[in-house]
Amino acid sequence: MKLYDYILSPSCYKVRLMAALIGVKLDLRPVDFHPGGEHRSPELLALNPAGSIPILEDGDLILTESSAILVYLAAKVAPEWLGSGKAKEAARVQQWLSFSGRLTASLGTARLHEMLLRPGNIGALQALGTAALRELEAGLVEQGLRGMRFLASDRPTIADIACFPYAALAPDGGVTLDAYPAIRLWSRALRALDKFIEMPGIHRLHELKPEPQIEAGEA
Amino acid sequence: MKLYDYILSPSCYKVRLMAALIGVKLDLRPVDFHPGGEHRSPELLALNPAGSIPILEDGDLILTESSAILVYLAAKVAPEWLGSGKAKEAARVQQWLSFSGRLTASLGTARLHEMLLRPGNIGALQALGTAALRELEAGLVEQGLRGMRFLASDRPTIADIACFPYAALAPDGGVTLDAYPAIRLWSRALRALDKFIEMPGIHRLHELKPEPQIEAGEA
Repeated sequence: MKLYDYILSPSCYKVRLMAALIGVKLDLRPVDFHPGGEHRSPELLALNPAGSIPILEDGDLILTESSAILVYLAAKVAPEWLGSGKAKEAARVQQWLSFSGRLTASLGTARLHEMLLRPGNIGALQALGTAALRELEAGLVEQGLRGMRFLASDRPTIADIACFPYAALAPDGGVTLDAYPAIRLWSRALRALDKFIEMPGIHRLHELKPEPQIEAGEA
Repeated sequence: MKLYDYILSPSCYKVRLMAALIGVKLDLRPVDFHPGGEHRSPELLALNPAGSIPILEDGDLILTESSAILVYLAAKVAPEWLGSGKAKEAARVQQWLSFSGRLTASLGTARLHEMLLRPGNIGALQALGTAALRELEAGLVEQGLRGMRFLASDRPTIADIACFPYAALAPDGGVTLDAYPAIRLWSRALRALDKFIEMPGIHRLHELKPEPQIEAGEA
């Protein structure tokens, strides 16, 4: 399986993270995603006319939506990451997969604005991102009341992987996570998973890392 | 199951169409979705802070993403609409569920601009909509080469229901479907399904209806 990948793309990181967690080896093909980069080359536009990455290629299958790639990896190797398959849980997984698009459109675009000077109304993007983070926080609090630590279930699913990167990188777009204790707790639970990988080069991802010594001292 | 519904919303129509096709009776609760309407009322904002419809309520389950509602209805009553569950087919279903958000953001927003004077750069929205329709057309042509008439399989799935309304209503946003024979053929195949329902009040949905006599004459 070949992944057309850009190391600083949170959407590509979703795929790398999922693959790492379930032990899938990807054939990484780095793409220059800066403005004017090769994601607009004829080769890549033939694979994905939308000009976006990640792109996963496996034989005659080409997937260009990160949520679809998560479904594919999980369905192939680790179906427990799709949820139990019961109607309510399947619906909750899809609710957050669809919702993740709102994180990308708001926090992701704010991040590109701040980091790559992509044009946009930064105030409006941050307001949309804040609204989305409030919904994510409320969803996690509700799950907590049901005794569940993750977005759709008591164990992590592709829904968590779809929402985690753009939420965790909100500060890159100028939106703080200070007001969202449930999101921070959930981020720690994801980071504590066996085989979790960080997104390289992103300092802020490290700031929320579990600090067992300090926590033990506080307890 | 209660559906907060607006008769002229293509996203609500997705849910009504799915329910009709699989024989689920919904308790419809009409919502005034015009600017300043009750979708911004405290009652509805408590259900969905994003202020969007459809909203499906079933006991303690509240779903606010149309794709998640499609998953829920199908998983409960007619799981064959989720696809076969094989990894490639599951991934293709998700690819088009995610893609459907791009139809909504482009063609859907162009339609709101034309019909409800929602602000926006209509030229840019139409260009994005055209790009999305080209991808949909290409996807259907590719499926045709595999001998399949629908987006993810040889039989219809929730992926088709998620993409159909905004594609079929493209002309409402000023984007013609003339250049997309595969989309027109696929629309006819969907309209020919047993228990298919139209979206009331939308004349253009009728224009592409199957006309068996004329087709027989041409054959």
